Amino acid sequence: MPQKYRLLAEHYMKAIESGSLSEGERMPSLRELTALHRVSISTAVEACRVLEKHGYVEAKPRTGYFIRDPKRAITRFKEKREIEADGTEQRIDPADYVGVHERISVTLARGLQRPPKVDLAGAVCAPALYPGAALRDTLLRILRAKPSMYESAPQSDGVRKLKEAIARSSVTRGLHVDADAVLVTHGCSEALSLALRAVTGPGDIVAIESPSYFGILQIIESLGLKAIEIPTDPQTGMSVDALEFAINHMGSIQAVVCMPSVQNPLGSVMPDTLKIKMVELCDKHNMTIIEDDTYGAFLPSPANARPLKAWDKTGNVIYCNSLNKSLSPGLRVGWLIGGKWHKKIEMLMYAVSRHREEMAQLAAADFMAGGAFNRHMRRLNALLTQQRTQFVDAILRYFPAGTVVTRPEAGLLLWISLPDELSTDTLFENALREGIRICPGSIFSNTSKFSNCLRLSAGRPFDAQIDAALKTLARLTREIGGNGTLIEHHP
Amino acid sequence: MPQKYRLLAEHYMKAIESGSLSEGERMPSLRELTALHRVSISTAVEACRVLEKHGYVEAKPRTGYFIRDPKRAITRFKEKREIEADGTEQRIDPADYVGVHERISVTLARGLQRPPKVDLAGAVCAPALYPGAALRDTLLRILRAKPSMYESAPQSDGVRKLKEAIARSSVTRGLHVDADAVLVTHGCSEALSLALRAVTGPGDIVAIESPSYFGILQIIESLGLKAIEIPTDPQTGMSVDALEFAINHMGSIQAVVCMPSVQNPLGSVMPDTLKIKMVELCDKHNMTIIEDDTYGAFLPSPANARPLKAWDKTGNVIYCNSLNKSLSPGLRVGWLIGGKWHKKIEMLMYAVSRHREEMAQLAAADFMAGGAFNRHMRRLNALLTQQRTQFVDAILRYFPAGTVVTRPEAGLLLWISLPDELSTDTLFENALREGIRICPGSIFSNTSKFSNCLRLSAGRPFDAQIDAALKTLARLTREIGGNGTLIEHHP
Ligand SMILES: Cc1ncc(COP(=O)(O)O)c(C=O)c1O
Ligand SMILES: Cc1ncc(COP(=O)(O)O)c(C=O)c1O
Repeated sequence: MPQKYRLLAEHYMKAIESGSLSEGERMPSLRELTALHRVSISTAVEACRVLEKHGYVEAKPRTGYFIRDPKRAITRFKEKREIEADGTEQRIDPADYVGVHERISVTLARGLQRPPKVDLAGAVCAPALYPGAALRDTLLRILRAKPSMYESAPQSDGVRKLKEAIARSSVTRGLHVDADAVLVTHGCSEALSLALRAVTGPGDIVAIESPSYFGILQIIESLGLKAIEIPTDPQTGMSVDALEFAINHMGSIQAVVCMPSVQNPLGSVMPDTLKIKMVELCDKHNMTIIEDDTYGAFLPSPANARPLKAWDKTGNVIYCNSLNKSLSPGLRVGWLIGGKWHKKIEMLMYAVSRHREEMAQLAAADFMAGGAFNRHMRRLNALLTQQRTQFVDAILRYFPAGTVVTRPEAGLLLWISLPDELSTDTLFENALREGIRICPGSIFSNTSKFSNCLRLSAGRPFDAQIDAALKTLARLTREIGGNGTLIEHHP
Repeated sequence: MPQKYRLLAEHYMKAIESGSLSEGERMPSLRELTALHRVSISTAVEACRVLEKHGYVEAKPRTGYFIRDPKRAITRFKEKREIEADGTEQRIDPADYVGVHERISVTLARGLQRPPKVDLAGAVCAPALYPGAALRDTLLRILRAKPSMYESAPQSDGVRKLKEAIARSSVTRGLHVDADAVLVTHGCSEALSLALRAVTGPGDIVAIESPSYFGILQIIESLGLKAIEIPTDPQTGMSVDALEFAINHMGSIQAVVCMPSVQNPLGSVMPDTLKIKMVELCDKHNMTIIEDDTYGAFLPSPANARPLKAWDKTGNVIYCNSLNKSLSPGLRVGWLIGGKWHKKIEMLMYAVSRHREEMAQLAAADFMAGGAFNRHMRRLNALLTQQRTQFVDAILRYFPAGTVVTRPEAGLLLWISLPDELSTDTLFENALREGIRICPGSIFSNTSKFSNCLRLSAGRPFDAQIDAALKTLARLTREIGGNGTLIEHHP
């Protein structure tokens, strides 16, 4: 016999799925629920908790619960059901990514045509939040101390000092590696690209998060790979169940690319239990994990959120990272830990770019070894926590009902879902005309699943200009039809 | 009726091919020839010129002509004949490059195990020959003038100022390009790798020079390509005839990678007539030319030696270059002009490495735009001309008879052929033990054709230490059997 709160929750799930309660509507308050259904306050609370957990309602601070679009709310469950229904009869068809790059780069290029007044598109913090002056002093010091640096070639696999600093600082993330296991790359992009090239060949299949950082889609297309997009939860990251299902119903998946710690664009952080499950699953199926930990340093307490690599016993995880987002967007210093692919990646790296410049590496080593990097991240993360709250509050205040925004526990990115029928490609164009740059959801997937979503960066300190920009975005959203009642009018 | 000098030349060719005159022996002097064969001095001179041109004899300054190993002397003709003999019945089999990288990198790594006393292996000039102080001043100035450089991301396809400087300076090489046609890369290695990735897919065939810069062999293996090595003349570069023959007897060759201006390792410079022939040939067969112009700036009068790209009317030539050898081994600034492949390469580049650091680009732009680069190259080239002569003189003085050394008109590299039966892999090991690093010929080909060759860099000013090192190398050569009489003892 199901418990009372479950029955109550299911009652509302059906009401929401059938459309009797439509998106953006206010959910009855706890007091109203107890009166309507003759249940205790604690039962009402539990029911709302279940509805929220399953994505049927969204809690707004100091206002109560609001109905979410059920199509979005249960996306991951529905998809899994669809996969299951099909899977028994036919194979899942991985998508060839042809034209993804074009679509993404045209979009990005349009955004760059003229400098916007307010840039909310880049996954980057405001220049002032980076330790620019300290970096410059460090660079000047290095240049003065090593005047002959540009007269001969540096180490091809990375400056020793940096590798050691990386190895030492990895320990704070629960990662114990030898400096020799580290390969210094030209940012995380090169790391991801090398990792995929090492593990796959053209036509091979890789699994990725959906939505996922568009750069990964571009790399996949550039390498002639096929991809399968795995439903990804805004809280807990890539669905390991769906991944397992995909593995069981496809020929073979060579690799999975994921960001378990502060996913781009969702900001999700995988719980340890899921991480362990994922590492074991991939090990069992001999499927390499390519872990993008670009935003790992943004976790407020990094010790509590170890990367997948920390659980890797077989060398099956290729770990990629970069200082590009955390320390300096102008430094191209990334690295990877290749596990059992180390030698092959080293070979590819050497063939593709040979030596790497020394100066940036020495500066990075300095910041990491001396503790300045950690101090900077603590300060930055505190600022970002505040900024995220300010951004979310303003979004909830201005945007039409039916808007759902993530509340990630870390990082600088917010993911906003507008009512289903609204196109953020249109919003993107209209916003550009007002001098505001955003990232439309369409570039985060090869499907049209996220055409009503947008990514905003909360990397700039919240001020009157940002406030006004968000207000303008909300107005533009209404102008393209997002008035909170549209869902009922929609055929 | 053949002319007298031709008959005389053929007489000696037969004598050399039959072994009656063996490698390293002194050719009769002009005076002796006139007496022996009752010909005029001018006929004797002409005959020797023909023999030298066809590689049967080698002129040594102030000593006269010496017999070369006929197997090496006529390599390119013999090979072509072999190709022709086979070609009619069966296809030429392009080689899968598997293990090339391993072999090359193990060799290079052995050389790096301890710092040598005298490094003659690297294709690089002595640190003091690069404008280190001026570069540092420029970098300091840039850092001071643009303190915020590291706080935001630079242009992904290269800093505008550098692209413009490249376009402008290309004119001195007879190359008229728009700044927009230039893509800035992470050295020439990335340029070559991107070019090959754009044009080929795994299993495709590319033609390369033989011998060729080992980095190209590594890139070919890393991309899973097959390669066909085309005979390459120490004077005139890749044999266009042999290339045409290969095209006619193989399925299809996707691309040809070559260094028409100062080839690595031979130092050959293709004459304009052959360049034009090559561009037309490749156009006709829809085969992309990937031109590596890394050493083009080392040509003393660059206007006289235009790159293939200057004759390209269809966008079929991808032009690659770098400042790594010429301006600074510590700067990772290269570029490419992609022709009809521009868009695809841009896409690959963006996916693989995204932004590139700004500072090195600004410094490079400064040097190129301000004329400092050209001034530096004029000075450097004058020094190198002198150094090459000093190196060659010492080599001819110390090495056993039968040694053949190139006399390239430009650049820093010398290619030495020892008598056929000597292994420069052994010489490499023995030299390392004496603190001298050389490049064994085996890493410049997937065949064993150059196992008796070595590459030396004349990039260091000639001094007593170099002199002693060359003397030691000559002694080691004798110790492994190169005493100038060995050929007769050889079975
Ligand atoms: C998740 C993720 N991975 C990789 C990158 C690229 O990193 P890098 O700039 O170090 O190449 C980005 C940049 O946006 C990113 O968000
Ligand atoms: C002919 C040639 N091409 C390319 C390269 C690599 O150039 P870069 O150092 O700019 O990547 C070299 C370096 O030795 C070379 O000799």
